[in-house]
Amino acid sequence: MDAHLAQLFDFLRFPSVSTDPACRDDVSACGEWLYKKFVSMGLFAEVHGTPGHPVIFARTERQPGRPTVLIYGHYDVQPADPLDLWTSAPFEPRLVDGVIVARGAADNKGQIMAHILGVEAALAAGGGLPVNVLFVVEGEEEIGSPNLGGFLARHAEELSCDVVVISDTTMIAPGVPTLTYGLRGIGCVEVRVTGPAVDLHSGIYGGAVQNPITALARLLATLHDAEGRIAVPGFCDAVEPLREWEREAWAALPLTEARLLEITGAPALTGEPGYSALERMWARPTIEINGIGGGYQGEGTKTIIPHEAFAKLTFRLVPRQKANEAIRQVGDFLRKNAPQGVKVEILEGHHGDPYVTDPHSGFGKAAQRALAKTFEREVALIREGGSIPIVQSFTEILGVDTLLLGLALPDCNAHSPNENFPVANFEAGIRLNQALLRELGG
Amino acid sequence: MDAHLAQLFDFLRFPSVSTDPACRDDVSACGEWLYKKFVSMGLFAEVHGTPGHPVIFARTERQPGRPTVLIYGHYDVQPADPLDLWTSAPFEPRLVDGVIVARGAADNKGQIMAHILGVEAALAAGGGLPVNVLFVVEGEEEIGSPNLGGFLARHAEELSCDVVVISDTTMIAPGVPTLTYGLRGIGCVEVRVTGPAVDLHSGIYGGAVQNPITALARLLATLHDAEGRIAVPGFCDAVEPLREWEREAWAALPLTEARLLEITGAPALTGEPGYSALERMWARPTIEINGIGGGYQGEGTKTIIPHEAFAKLTFRLVPRQKANEAIRQVGDFLRKNAPQGVKVEILEGHHGDPYVTDPHSGFGKAAQRALAKTFEREVALIREGGSIPIVQSFTEILGVDTLLLGLALPDCNAHSPNENFPVANFEAGIRLNQALLRELGG
Repeated sequence: MDAHLAQLFDFLRFPSVSTDPACRDDVSACGEWLYKKFVSMGLFAEVHGTPGHPVIFARTERQPGRPTVLIYGHYDVQPADPLDLWTSAPFEPRLVDGVIVARGAADNKGQIMAHILGVEAALAAGGGLPVNVLFVVEGEEEIGSPNLGGFLARHAEELSCDVVVISDTTMIAPGVPTLTYGLRGIGCVEVRVTGPAVDLHSGIYGGAVQNPITALARLLATLHDAEGRIAVPGFCDAVEPLREWEREAWAALPLTEARLLEITGAPALTGEPGYSALERMWARPTIEINGIGGGYQGEGTKTIIPHEAFAKLTFRLVPRQKANEAIRQVGDFLRKNAPQGVKVEILEGHHGDPYVTDPHSGFGKAAQRALAKTFEREVALIREGGSIPIVQSFTEILGVDTLLLGLALPDCNAHSPNENFPVANFEAGIRLNQALLRELGG
Repeated sequence: MDAHLAQLFDFLRFPSVSTDPACRDDVSACGEWLYKKFVSMGLFAEVHGTPGHPVIFARTERQPGRPTVLIYGHYDVQPADPLDLWTSAPFEPRLVDGVIVARGAADNKGQIMAHILGVEAALAAGGGLPVNVLFVVEGEEEIGSPNLGGFLARHAEELSCDVVVISDTTMIAPGVPTLTYGLRGIGCVEVRVTGPAVDLHSGIYGGAVQNPITALARLLATLHDAEGRIAVPGFCDAVEPLREWEREAWAALPLTEARLLEITGAPALTGEPGYSALERMWARPTIEINGIGGGYQGEGTKTIIPHEAFAKLTFRLVPRQKANEAIRQVGDFLRKNAPQGVKVEILEGHHGDPYVTDPHSGFGKAAQRALAKTFEREVALIREGGSIPIVQSFTEILGVDTLLLGLALPDCNAHSPNENFPVANFEAGIRLNQALLRELGG
């Protein structure tokens, strides 16, 4: 295990923050490291440059007459800030009470590394693998995979496969094997509100002109009704209702509202009426404001009417919603509600459609068997609130379903300070990979 | 003039930003410089330490049987940020086409320096001054003068006077002498909204918990109605209506709405219905959001539900409103409207009551004569939208009225990047001081 951990730590030390231009070389170096790892395992490997960050591709020799499994992951990570809330440096991984603490430990370096080391172990044991394996590990997942769709389309033949396997989701609770059969989609917009040509003295000019922050706050307040329902016309029209078996199964899961309160530390769980917290997280759309800024944010008071203000929004989308359509609806709504006396600009960001599949298909059942054997417990069937836009691309471009076998825990702090991943889950992931390839190989 | 400018430039080079703890020594050094200037003029001068920044006091020898005039100013300045919008360094004053560009050039170093140099010139001419002169120049005006009231109260006897003179307001237009007979008051609150214990992944948890930015935006949107009227109950109850002569006089002023559009660069002038822009700026209250922040503000996207969000608010208050009462009303209103699922904290800041006086009193008429003689034009009688909270203290503690003789222009960019002050106004201010002291003495 020490050798496995040492390799994961090397992988975690790269600050491969894909959204930050200052980290561009670090992202490349991280991809290069991964490429060398695949070569050292005896796989055929390639670094595919893109207009953004490279895709790392690797494969075993393709043998006819047995299934081909594409294992997908990403080596890029979220930004680490706010840095002052980390108990240790985010890119200097530490082992604390059996838990690996570092940015990317769970999302996604720890999980993809478990698959890589699982394949390495199976190869080292001799006799070859029971399936053909393809690895596609990209460096742009955290910015919406802008170049992976093109890569898949250009290399569709080489990438032809029977099923995709991804571990980039969570286990419902420690030790509970979990198969995720649905993901939310994502859409992003940024709203910029511009008023006076420069910051004005709010005493001298206050009352004469519209304040861009006031205008922005009023505009953002139109997105929801007083009870927390999304108020953008048409936004929820296509939403597929929850099935009754899902509501029942989810109500029985060990991820209770008490546990969610504990994990989030929020004063209360709130949201759209008529749905449980899990239902709101997994099967209802959201419009979240991820960041807002404008005017003076320093110590004390600065009496200005600011020149401008902005807000960064992402929506989460559920089956039957279309991300492009959602972005258009929100943009139109905000433009229509734009207060007088300011200029409102809508900048459209990346997007990905939602995904749902049948957990009871042949490959789904094979995955359930591998999970049950590895963890020796009944498998939880869930959806998740996060987005892996590329899952939709695998369906559309390669025509295959994706098995989402999460290894991270709900309190892994993905996207938050002190991201973490238990060594036990890392080890289980290595074993799960081997069990899964056996079950899929039939 | 060169010697006068050189002294003003020395004064402007101190980054005496009173709100910024990092500038504490610079503020002190600026006060010390001023003290030495007064001593060099042959005045009795003192540096009065306070829990914040020092008050600089100076006076001529008090001779009985003639009026005593207290000239007030401040040597502290607003923060200079955003620095990237300045065309030159804010604390390296430059002369550009007859205009002095620097933080504090107009507000208030250039204006108080004109009075100091006027007194110096009169003293240098021999024969003494026609009045007793007291100078009170503080270092905390931009943070609400928290220690000046105490200073005035403790030294009320030494500071006893017949009238206060302040040049910290604006001329209505270039070359138009202006007597300001009213000022708005100010109240400050900061709103902090706290949600989950840390930033959460907005995909995984979105829908389960209240988003602090959404909550803050919804809360701030309750402050005004759809037409721009303040919606805080009781806030406007005490507001004194505009007098008919004021509405007529202001409508005839050369500060037109077209000129205001030009100065502000706003897409349009907007605000409370039923009032002209000047009326809204000078005689109606406002609630402005001076700054807002929360979540991710960097490049790209970070998909989080932030731990917290905040907004910095100031209100401007008009005669008969009480600043303490206004802060209480807004605080109660925001607490009452606090959305569920988040914690809302209200931090109360500094405050100052509004001020209005009669421009046709004896001293008022003397000031109008001095203004008319110096500028050789009819005097505009106006109110102003800004706040000089200490004016109210002069009335309450010393029992005297204040003559507000502004020397800055409306586009002087006080509190904004590229603050400026024409040399012509600086020179006129030096002459105005001498004419004023003659009229008041006479």
